[in-house]
Amino acid sequence: MASFTIFGTGNMATAIAGVLTAGGAEVAHVSSGDTTATISGETVILAVPYPAITEIVANYGDQLAEKVIVDITNPLNFETFDELVVPVGSSAAAELQRALPAAKVLKAFNTNFAATLASGKVGEASETVTTVLIAGDDAAAKSALGAAVTAGGLAAVDAGSLKRAHELESLGFLQLTLAASEKISWAGGFGLNN
Amino acid sequence: MASFTIFGTGNMATAIAGVLTAGGAEVAHVSSGDTTATISGETVILAVPYPAITEIVANYGDQLAEKVIVDITNPLNFETFDELVVPVGSSAAAELQRALPAAKVLKAFNTNFAATLASGKVGEASETVTTVLIAGDDAAAKSALGAAVTAGGLAAVDAGSLKRAHELESLGFLQLTLAASEKISWAGGFGLNN
Repeated sequence: MASFTIFGTGNMATAIAGVLTAGGAEVAHVSSGDTTATISGETVILAVPYPAITEIVANYGDQLAEKVIVDITNPLNFETFDELVVPVGSSAAAELQRALPAAKVLKAFNTNFAATLASGKVGEASETVTTVLIAGDDAAAKSALGAAVTAGGLAAVDAGSLKRAHELESLGFLQLTLAASEKISWAGGFGLNN
Repeated sequence: MASFTIFGTGNMATAIAGVLTAGGAEVAHVSSGDTTATISGETVILAVPYPAITEIVANYGDQLAEKVIVDITNPLNFETFDELVVPVGSSAAAELQRALPAAKVLKAFNTNFAATLASGKVGEASETVTTVLIAGDDAAAKSALGAAVTAGGLAAVDAGSLKRAHELESLGFLQLTLAASEKISWAGGFGLNN
């Protein structure tokens, strides 16, 4: 059975846990205040706001060193809502990979609003199945996450190498600006259609 | 009646012209070999590959100087399919705006495959209406283009300032890589659901 440890207990953490448990995976949570937990999962999902990642790496660097780590963050400047806070051309996922060079970092879930993970559809009156886009350099890790997501009833697409995390974060950023400006609802967004 | 001059005669030029004429607009074409045409349209759409823009600016800079110009390009490195050829963090649209500072540059149509403009749907078995995302700094120009697009049967969404062209080009890039790697069809892509 696939096992996951999810950092965070917010909307996204809850929604991701729902998908994975629906697919038969074992899920444990670590709350953000906990600095000394034992990480049991094969795969670790950082379902926390971007600024919390630095502290998690500081507290759990040894345990995370060789794990599959899923970064779901959208590193927005939430004051201006007009730029990202990672270096231009880079991504939160690439920065995390730099901090933990032996880990297998994946970018995923950052283009999915929590409601679309819970409902399985993008948009309230939509037939578009929610697709989790996964970028990363380790094919086996991407494939395993994709299998856990599809077992939970969603679609998963390999979006390419970890370099594509830049484009996934751009897409997440754009989608957040559209929802914040009420062009779309928080139950909608970009759905992938074939 | 809104009037458009479209540079280019390829799939995208044809599909965009189809949408605009369906909405009652007047559309003239300039083929890429023509270097001395008179631009009659109020709005100019550069439906050409990104490398052709430099020559159009060189040949038509005077006529384009104060026009509304719609840039639809995805400035990919089509040899590597792994990066854009514009400066990191910038966009083709921002570069065009720099070259023609008095023009009103809009980014639009770069996230729409031609087939989705022609069919009005994203995906072959989909009910998702094709949405044209429009970024730019001139609200009136964005609004006029959006009205022409919706008159032609599609949806249009104001995606923010011209700075958001970076995110639209990231989205176009990602979508092209997904189609080129057969994760989606050329009749599909990212549809915007509410």
